[in-house]
Amino acid sequence: MITSSSLAAWLTRFEAALAAPASTDWSQLFAEECYWRDLLAFTWDIVTLEGRDAIAAMARKQAGLIGASGFALDNPSLPMTDEAQGWFTFKTATARCRGHLQLRDGRAYVLLTAMVELIGHEEMGGSQRPRPDGIEHRAKKGRRTWLDEREEIGRTLGRSVQPYCLIVGGGQNGLMLAARLKRLSVPTLVIDALEKPGDGWRGRYRSLYLHDPVFLDHFPYLPFPEHWPLYTSKDKIADWMELYAKVMEIDFWGSTRCTAARYDEKAGEWSVTVTRNEETLTLRPKQLVLATGLSGAKQIPTIRGAEHFRGRQFHSSEHRSGAGLAGKRCVVIGSNNSAHDICVDLWEHDARVTMIQRSATIVVRADTMREFAKSIYYAQPGADTNLADLMGMTMPFRPRTTFEKGFTDHLRKVDADFYQRLEKSGFHLWHGEDETGFFMAYYRRAGGYYIDVGGSELIATGEIPVRRGEVAEIVADGLCMADGTFVPADVIVYATGYRPMNEWVGQLISPEVERKVGPCWGLGSGTECDAGPWEGELRNMWKPTAQEALWFQGGNLAQSRFHSLHLALQLKARMEGVPTPVYRPPSTRNAP
Amino acid sequence: MITSSSLAAWLTRFEAALAAPASTDWSQLFAEECYWRDLLAFTWDIVTLEGRDAIAAMARKQAGLIGASGFALDNPSLPMTDEAQGWFTFKTATARCRGHLQLRDGRAYVLLTAMVELIGHEEMGGSQRPRPDGIEHRAKKGRRTWLDEREEIGRTLGRSVQPYCLIVGGGQNGLMLAARLKRLSVPTLVIDALEKPGDGWRGRYRSLYLHDPVFLDHFPYLPFPEHWPLYTSKDKIADWMELYAKVMEIDFWGSTRCTAARYDEKAGEWSVTVTRNEETLTLRPKQLVLATGLSGAKQIPTIRGAEHFRGRQFHSSEHRSGAGLAGKRCVVIGSNNSAHDICVDLWEHDARVTMIQRSATIVVRADTMREFAKSIYYAQPGADTNLADLMGMTMPFRPRTTFEKGFTDHLRKVDADFYQRLEKSGFHLWHGEDETGFFMAYYRRAGGYYIDVGGSELIATGEIPVRRGEVAEIVADGLCMADGTFVPADVIVYATGYRPMNEWVGQLISPEVERKVGPCWGLGSGTECDAGPWEGELRNMWKPTAQEALWFQGGNLAQSRFHSLHLALQLKARMEGVPTPVYRPPSTRNAP
Repeated sequence: MITSSSLAAWLTRFEAALAAPASTDWSQLFAEECYWRDLLAFTWDIVTLEGRDAIAAMARKQAGLIGASGFALDNPSLPMTDEAQGWFTFKTATARCRGHLQLRDGRAYVLLTAMVELIGHEEMGGSQRPRPDGIEHRAKKGRRTWLDEREEIGRTLGRSVQPYCLIVGGGQNGLMLAARLKRLSVPTLVIDALEKPGDGWRGRYRSLYLHDPVFLDHFPYLPFPEHWPLYTSKDKIADWMELYAKVMEIDFWGSTRCTAARYDEKAGEWSVTVTRNEETLTLRPKQLVLATGLSGAKQIPTIRGAEHFRGRQFHSSEHRSGAGLAGKRCVVIGSNNSAHDICVDLWEHDARVTMIQRSATIVVRADTMREFAKSIYYAQPGADTNLADLMGMTMPFRPRTTFEKGFTDHLRKVDADFYQRLEKSGFHLWHGEDETGFFMAYYRRAGGYYIDVGGSELIATGEIPVRRGEVAEIVADGLCMADGTFVPADVIVYATGYRPMNEWVGQLISPEVERKVGPCWGLGSGTECDAGPWEGELRNMWKPTAQEALWFQGGNLAQSRFHSLHLALQLKARMEGVPTPVYRPPSTRNAP
Repeated sequence: MITSSSLAAWLTRFEAALAAPASTDWSQLFAEECYWRDLLAFTWDIVTLEGRDAIAAMARKQAGLIGASGFALDNPSLPMTDEAQGWFTFKTATARCRGHLQLRDGRAYVLLTAMVELIGHEEMGGSQRPRPDGIEHRAKKGRRTWLDEREEIGRTLGRSVQPYCLIVGGGQNGLMLAARLKRLSVPTLVIDALEKPGDGWRGRYRSLYLHDPVFLDHFPYLPFPEHWPLYTSKDKIADWMELYAKVMEIDFWGSTRCTAARYDEKAGEWSVTVTRNEETLTLRPKQLVLATGLSGAKQIPTIRGAEHFRGRQFHSSEHRSGAGLAGKRCVVIGSNNSAHDICVDLWEHDARVTMIQRSATIVVRADTMREFAKSIYYAQPGADTNLADLMGMTMPFRPRTTFEKGFTDHLRKVDADFYQRLEKSGFHLWHGEDETGFFMAYYRRAGGYYIDVGGSELIATGEIPVRRGEVAEIVADGLCMADGTFVPADVIVYATGYRPMNEWVGQLISPEVERKVGPCWGLGSGTECDAGPWEGELRNMWKPTAQEALWFQGGNLAQSRFHSLHLALQLKARMEGVPTPVYRPPSTRNAP
């Protein structure tokens, strides 16, 4: 078969090159335009190397340290397998890995390498169950039951026994990571300011449903059952999280606030102050993970006169439901997802709603996205979620940027009528400053868009009028716009987003560490809200940061599921003393 | 391929025979010794037809009503597929079915036919999700969220809205059936005397673990994650059940007692009196399922003088833990599973334990059973639980009886030393009156055995002395045995089992209905505790009973999972008005 032989031949040459990276002519292996995206396997980091020089530099530095071998083609019936691309497996000195190779004229265009599990430190599961021989089934004085052990952990963890890893934030991000660490036997404690897992969702506005379809949203190890609705209600996902934490035996402290954290270089551990109910405790974990989500503290713009407003004004996170607001003049400041959802909710409850749009907004139709989603591998019957997650990594962010321009063109054609009607209504529509649309806005700034689930129609028909521009001043009974017009209001909702994640580092640890670590999320694209230099991967997420033993876990459900594996592997390796030589390329490249 | 062609040829001839059952010579199709085991597909009942006459009689009566067609061999890579046996699929006028055929010299030895799903009334799942097009994602006045709907059902079900099906008993049996009915959109209410799902397990003695390994215990639709322990602690399974009920959106009333039920023939509905907390309500379901388990009310033997005992005496179901009983003389009456487990628990807490063995007991070693279990299909990586459940049905109870004698022989050889030591200690060991051992005892009487998880060793070494015989009288400080000896006691535990399920029918409905329905469970083997006539299937379980609209759901986790499908299909068919011509063969046969 020619298919596998050209891929196999490349892998053989590649393995030989790794054995002698300094004397290899890398231009024989990699195409002119080329990318090597690595998830821990070679770099113990999440990086994309762009171009032959960057690739050669990394290989020269890492190949000897990593000791990759045993490259072999994977099952040819997998998706994304044809004469020019395919999956493969290999090992390093410390881990089992898989990868994907895309050839162009016999040379690599994109190479993906990803760590899957540590050798000798595998997850529990299948043949490796806890107490595989049923040791509970023994008569023994002083025998302890599962409940005895869970209760003891409840009593001692965080007190006489310190967790190796402390996760601050018990939303889906924290829980998914904690579940993986549990399977890897890494002692972990999750703390959250709210009482129970899922309360973050329960407290949101009543009409909230996930915007991603179910097949993107699975949690590790316990996929949703097949009859799960396509879009999950916030309360149902909240219940799921509560159950998940229990089934996965996650050690979770609710009603616990983290107030300060300091890293003791000498002891190699954190000193973290937390307040649990009334009690203040100091935790001493070796590793600290912030999983508080992209959305940290509320962001409310300072608008002159706001204190004189006679009606109710609150941040979008405090909106519960439009019930009781029938007939009221409600002004929502903002035009992204939450703003739209709250406008719709208020309209459904017969409020008189106005949206204040301060800047242009990307809009994509959920219906269109759903049609698109049906064709992706995730949605296929019997899809392997782990593989699907890897498939999503086979296009690095630089070619992705170009791809998304094409996708925007496609959406503009498919939904031309929709976009035309929306713009006619006065709504300030755009597709991003470089026309890369919704997806790139998500990666660059985690905002700036609305996935339309009904709000745009109400805007197009004028049911929800939109006022463009900034608010100059708030007075007792309404808002004075910068253009001199007046918008009367009984209620003001600030759907103005959240402060960036890294500010939380400044508050919790120190401004120095905040500066050292730098921004989280974003690619360094040099576009609005995503200053350069170009990184080519999400900054600081799921990988080593400039602060030792400080990590960030976040993203949507799919990212959280996938990358929690990588973060868990890094933490486990450090706990077990597995060598983790981190390689980070200099970021001196131009943004795409 | 000869393999499939002989099987395929048989199926072709069989399909032709079904088209003209009266003029068919069934001896051409079925071997001299032959069985047709049917799960609803042809009989809307769970029956095994033994011999050609019984088979011909059923076929003549049912073939025309059922309209089976489209017989086709299934995937040849499935287990139990070779030149003489294989899986097949077919349809009836109302259902999709599958089956398994075992040939002997070209004629059928065992034919299994099983209904899988109703045509036009399929379960939700996969491509058929609730609200598949994400209708929640619409702006609509008065739109109701998932939570609104769940809350409304909570308010109205059992009050202004009557359930189609009422399940009495919210243990694993009730929950599994309710989950299936939910997926089939059959409005169902589960009631249980205890507060929360799982409380039945939580309340048992602290050291209790499931005796079946995890791969037998999966609940429908939501398999345990792969890292689940091989044997699950009672508290962990209790948590799982609580979560399962929530995830599956089962409508569950806890703290609810059912006090009376009467069937109104004319209205075609039940009138069921329940007390929920303080309130007494009348429910009017069309179908009533008793899922209170094989173990109904406690059975405590009447022993002369028991009222004079000065110590504590209680039924095994009230035993929590041996904690606090160190040094106490504890007498456990009984020698089955619970008796052994409680003896061990008491011993572990340094009590001075004596077991009173009133009758011979079958003992099998869990270690041996576990080795055996490792080889079964359930335990294989990636095993399909639905298929495994069907595989378990391919040996009807008559050949099974013979098979189990051989298995007993095997165990006696493998564990010869163990059995010898146990008998030497004075323990009254046997393997059933016809040497069919543990499995047949389970099917015939759901008791009479101990799966050894450590207790037998303590008995063999004399750590737990055994006294054989009946208790003649209880006095203030101990038990007088029938042989005249005395056993001093501070505590007496009655591990004497439970009253049979059908007594509950007498109490709840009427003695007439109890008589009409007859015993539940058991095969009619004519052995101790399982009076004839021979039924060849478990009596009254998961199938129509002599009382219209009254059903029994029970068994171990594996049976409950598998047969809840059959019970759910029968209930769904009746709700939808799908014809369900029940065929029950006359039970005039001799027991094996």
